[in-house]
Amino acid sequence: MKKHYDVVGLGNAIVDVLSYCEDAFLKAQGLDKGTMTLVDEARSQALYKMIGPSTECSGGSVANTLAGMASLGSQVAFIGKVAGDQLGKIFTHDLQSVGVRYHTPPAPQGAPSTANCLVFITPDAQRTMATYIGACALLNEGDIDETVIARGDILYIEGYLWNGEHNKAAIRKAMSIARAHGKKVAFTLSDTFCVHAHRDAFLALLSDLDILFANEAEIMALTASMDIDEAIAAVRGLCPIVAITRSEKGSIVVAGEHVHRVPTPPVAKLVDTTGAGDLFAAGFLHGHARALALPQCAELGNRCAGEIIQHLGARSLKPLKELVA
Amino acid sequence: MKKHYDVVGLGNAIVDVLSYCEDAFLKAQGLDKGTMTLVDEARSQALYKMIGPSTECSGGSVANTLAGMASLGSQVAFIGKVAGDQLGKIFTHDLQSVGVRYHTPPAPQGAPSTANCLVFITPDAQRTMATYIGACALLNEGDIDETVIARGDILYIEGYLWNGEHNKAAIRKAMSIARAHGKKVAFTLSDTFCVHAHRDAFLALLSDLDILFANEAEIMALTASMDIDEAIAAVRGLCPIVAITRSEKGSIVVAGEHVHRVPTPPVAKLVDTTGAGDLFAAGFLHGHARALALPQCAELGNRCAGEIIQHLGARSLKPLKELVA
Repeated sequence: MKKHYDVVGLGNAIVDVLSYCEDAFLKAQGLDKGTMTLVDEARSQALYKMIGPSTECSGGSVANTLAGMASLGSQVAFIGKVAGDQLGKIFTHDLQSVGVRYHTPPAPQGAPSTANCLVFITPDAQRTMATYIGACALLNEGDIDETVIARGDILYIEGYLWNGEHNKAAIRKAMSIARAHGKKVAFTLSDTFCVHAHRDAFLALLSDLDILFANEAEIMALTASMDIDEAIAAVRGLCPIVAITRSEKGSIVVAGEHVHRVPTPPVAKLVDTTGAGDLFAAGFLHGHARALALPQCAELGNRCAGEIIQHLGARSLKPLKELVA
Repeated sequence: MKKHYDVVGLGNAIVDVLSYCEDAFLKAQGLDKGTMTLVDEARSQALYKMIGPSTECSGGSVANTLAGMASLGSQVAFIGKVAGDQLGKIFTHDLQSVGVRYHTPPAPQGAPSTANCLVFITPDAQRTMATYIGACALLNEGDIDETVIARGDILYIEGYLWNGEHNKAAIRKAMSIARAHGKKVAFTLSDTFCVHAHRDAFLALLSDLDILFANEAEIMALTASMDIDEAIAAVRGLCPIVAITRSEKGSIVVAGEHVHRVPTPPVAKLVDTTGAGDLFAAGFLHGHARALALPQCAELGNRCAGEIIQHLGARSLKPLKELVA
């Protein structure tokens, strides 16, 4: 019998480089606090020289979500591009070791290196990111394996990947395969910069989606709303399920006429918000794949996000299963 | 005016790969809990495939000590060998970014890769290590820069480096330069496996040392003692200062007729003991370079060790200066 997947994810394959800095450093470097900026290799290396001691941990938004889901007990597969270098091997190990199926061929020798994301953590535990996309840009239609997507219940795509013709063609092919096989499609807006850069494309995508993930700033940017209630009214009906994360205020799920507001308990010690949205999606999708009611999905998402922000990095090195009670 | 160093350190240049495991895994893999085992590349890769998700952080015993000292405000330099690969660049960045002088030429292309240490953390926060020494074995006399050692007050050498003729020749050359320039020499026994493997050589070294670092198990192995008091009596007079770490029991400094027992306060949350001994040495040497009394040196060492065991990895990503009050 062929293996079945709860979710097949499509995203950037990135190793995070985590370090602490002051707000003044972000300002001096023109980095927009709380968001992600794409940088070229030279700028990435220049920033790396300026940061203090760092630690490396596998990342990538959808990859983080899938690692979290696998850790919760889901069956998941990832499609994304590394290079054949040491960081690519680390990224591959970290996904496979937690049980994520991951067999996208690495970029050939001489191609750009494995992507890295410089994560700057300020004293308020907020994270600001500068990503060198490297080998990720080479993900293309040829990497989209129909047999894998056909075996998944949900195809999950990150907005960050909406970048360059190769990647967009890969996304379109994956979505059309999912549709042809009667699968659900979920998408995350990823970042306000993505929304600003691709607003029309993302709005056009909405009617093809079953689930949309966004944080408060992203959904307001997408809907050009002044407050969250206006945004809720605007997205209602455009997509069957819209899950909105709101940091310490918990999350909101908009499903047709229903709006579920799900609070989140305060965390003991806020260390680093990297991965909070990704792990919310992990808990939510894990619940959804098990046909839990939407408020329960959001509640599990909140719990996973609450766990990840209490340590450094977007991946939990310990199993998350105990969060499913 | 030429730069002056509080400490010039000689050690292995290693990137740590940290992951969690159960005690049963160590037993099944024949790894001796709490100690370090040297493994070849094939065994290292086989173990890596078996471990769960991991995170990478620069390591190496003396390198950890120097990074800690720089973070405390000391001027320090490191001599050790990486390869020209991604992990070598990460190791170099992490030392240089905190202010450690580090300019040992990397091993040439085609040589073994940068060393890695698989650090297995058990639920009791104890760490067990399997090290693939890689490029470190290529450190040789040619890497020992007389002008750097001559500008340091203390030469600090790790016992782990006592491995192979290249490395031993490098250690001997460094020690003879330090002596010729009237500098102090400090040494750490590193691990009980080092003591068992090189006991006669280490005992012969003692008369050439000014400061010896050891933990309780190591000093008892070196002196073939049945308890700590017997060990203290045995080392007294063999080396001017012997600093012994005892985990939650604090530390002991033996200096001629004087024995200083310095307790350590309990820590809020024990996460990972990786680097505890290295950071004790950082605090101790930082104090010693500032002519603090020995109990004060040990007290600062205890505080640095207490800080590092409350998070994952042997390097603090935040400055340690606030510990010097």
